[in-house]
Amino acid sequence: MLVCWYCFDGSIAHSSFRSMFKAPEHQVAGHLASDGKLGPLVDDSGRFYKPLQSDGRGSKELAFYETFSSDTRVPDNIRRFFPVFYGSQLLEASNGSGLCLHLVLQDIVSGRTNPSIMDVKIGSRTWYPGASDDYIKKCLDKDGRTTTVSLGFRIAGLQLYEGEESGFWKPGRKEVQSFTVDNVRSVLRRFVSSSSSIGNEKPDCSFAPSIYGGSAGILEQLLELKAWFEDQTIYHFHSCSLLILFDKESVLKGSTPVAEIKLIDFAHVLEGKGVIDHNFLGGLCSLIKFVSDVLSDSKESSITANVESEKPHVCTSNGNCV
Amino acid sequence: MLVCWYCFDGSIAHSSFRSMFKAPEHQVAGHLASDGKLGPLVDDSGRFYKPLQSDGRGSKELAFYETFSSDTRVPDNIRRFFPVFYGSQLLEASNGSGLCLHLVLQDIVSGRTNPSIMDVKIGSRTWYPGASDDYIKKCLDKDGRTTTVSLGFRIAGLQLYEGEESGFWKPGRKEVQSFTVDNVRSVLRRFVSSSSSIGNEKPDCSFAPSIYGGSAGILEQLLELKAWFEDQTIYHFHSCSLLILFDKESVLKGSTPVAEIKLIDFAHVLEGKGVIDHNFLGGLCSLIKFVSDVLSDSKESSITANVESEKPHVCTSNGNCV
Repeated sequence: MLVCWYCFDGSIAHSSFRSMFKAPEHQVAGHLASDGKLGPLVDDSGRFYKPLQSDGRGSKELAFYETFSSDTRVPDNIRRFFPVFYGSQLLEASNGSGLCLHLVLQDIVSGRTNPSIMDVKIGSRTWYPGASDDYIKKCLDKDGRTTTVSLGFRIAGLQLYEGEESGFWKPGRKEVQSFTVDNVRSVLRRFVSSSSSIGNEKPDCSFAPSIYGGSAGILEQLLELKAWFEDQTIYHFHSCSLLILFDKESVLKGSTPVAEIKLIDFAHVLEGKGVIDHNFLGGLCSLIKFVSDVLSDSKESSITANVESEKPHVCTSNGNCV
Repeated sequence: MLVCWYCFDGSIAHSSFRSMFKAPEHQVAGHLASDGKLGPLVDDSGRFYKPLQSDGRGSKELAFYETFSSDTRVPDNIRRFFPVFYGSQLLEASNGSGLCLHLVLQDIVSGRTNPSIMDVKIGSRTWYPGASDDYIKKCLDKDGRTTTVSLGFRIAGLQLYEGEESGFWKPGRKEVQSFTVDNVRSVLRRFVSSSSSIGNEKPDCSFAPSIYGGSAGILEQLLELKAWFEDQTIYHFHSCSLLILFDKESVLKGSTPVAEIKLIDFAHVLEGKGVIDHNFLGGLCSLIKFVSDVLSDSKESSITANVESEKPHVCTSNGNCV
């Protein structure tokens, strides 16, 4: 297949190679390339190709990645929370509509086995100042119907690996959109619970200490991101998502779990103009509180469990020990 | 005058005393009792009497104060940021309409000489979930016209003591409502600048280190409040104001300045239901960044000024030193 692609310097080159593109296996939100629709593609080299969305959103996202990737004000410890940007490339669109410009990004699930992923849209409003009245109304309606207004964030999609037999729990878009505050709390627990406990009323959160907790855990990463948002006045991230991901199997195998957060979806990033992104920060703090609550609960129940197991055996006069 | 007042236990007592009530001298926002209108009153004993607002807002605020004042979950270091609540009392309304129930609160400017006061309404939205469509629309309009949406807070009123001759700078309601982001930045500088520099393009912020800075300064208090808001899930403070106040004269006289923050206006406080008040917290963090920027700038200019004044005198051959 002949592919025409834009180089970084803006010149156009032609390259002929056999396509190894396919729809991503672990996409949990957004438009899917399957069923002949327009959506992102991945290849075997660990790259993620996102077609530029129409109505200017795609070009705005490209412009963001171009600015951001060369922005020396962004410290490295924060840059790691963003997918690596490799430029843009013209590719056959997944819907067969012909050549279409794609963002070329790091495929953040590449190399992971059965990743559990949560896509959390951050902010108590997803509209941005200056948007059209119709757009604001549409966002306000959806923000109010979901947990965006009440929680300052909403889960936009998820897949949760439950084990070899059950595979993934991947609720449909409608189910996810109808999540209440209690559902969100429960999903955040279920996300880090052992498969055997997931059907229970109160999942065990047995992975919480290793995934949410620890010096390289999700909570520490969120706190690092928060510290940057308390200070940075460069960008306002409207309607942007935070992915939380890890491999349950690597935890089960006893290897160090790589739990990660990544920010994605930058079609509505505006200049900060000297003001912090209080909308994103507020939502992030709300998510942090939820994650931190799950972690505290799991520590408490682990202490209770230890105390239970450390109880001295009491032997009765008939020789039975309890 | 015969005054009928509600005691804490709900019983009604009657008391006869001569009224010493008057309109507050230093009110910077809200309804004013002057000109025969309904508004709050103060007396000489350091109490502030706020008439219960109509359409349920007044009774909601009373209910909040009653709950809050006996809420043992609120730590003392946070409680000091709220006016002391002394119950409610029936008083002759300031507009002569007869007896009206008033909240009896601590008059937070009592005992201060020429206080400089800023009323900052916190949050990037002033409406609350569950409000009527009309109310939300009204709030959204005003939030967008002011800096509420862009900054996560807006200045709702202020008075700034400029010295014996000029007295107070107290811009009118319309002027305050039209403050842009740049105006807010400038007001926050002007608020802690010496009177002589206030007319200048860049006020000197000479009081910033003693008022915004220091271990008992405004910034430290805001950070203490922030730490609570990162964790507390009891109350959501919609459309609530944060007062920042200090006496410039006490600074000029060399006495320790008492710079304070106080939260007021609780007609729209809702239960937190296990979720942090991300709307208030986001706005608070934005205000903190602004205050902290003024402080850093003032430290930098003070270093520059010191470096300038420490420059060695250079004497020219004709004996003039520069």
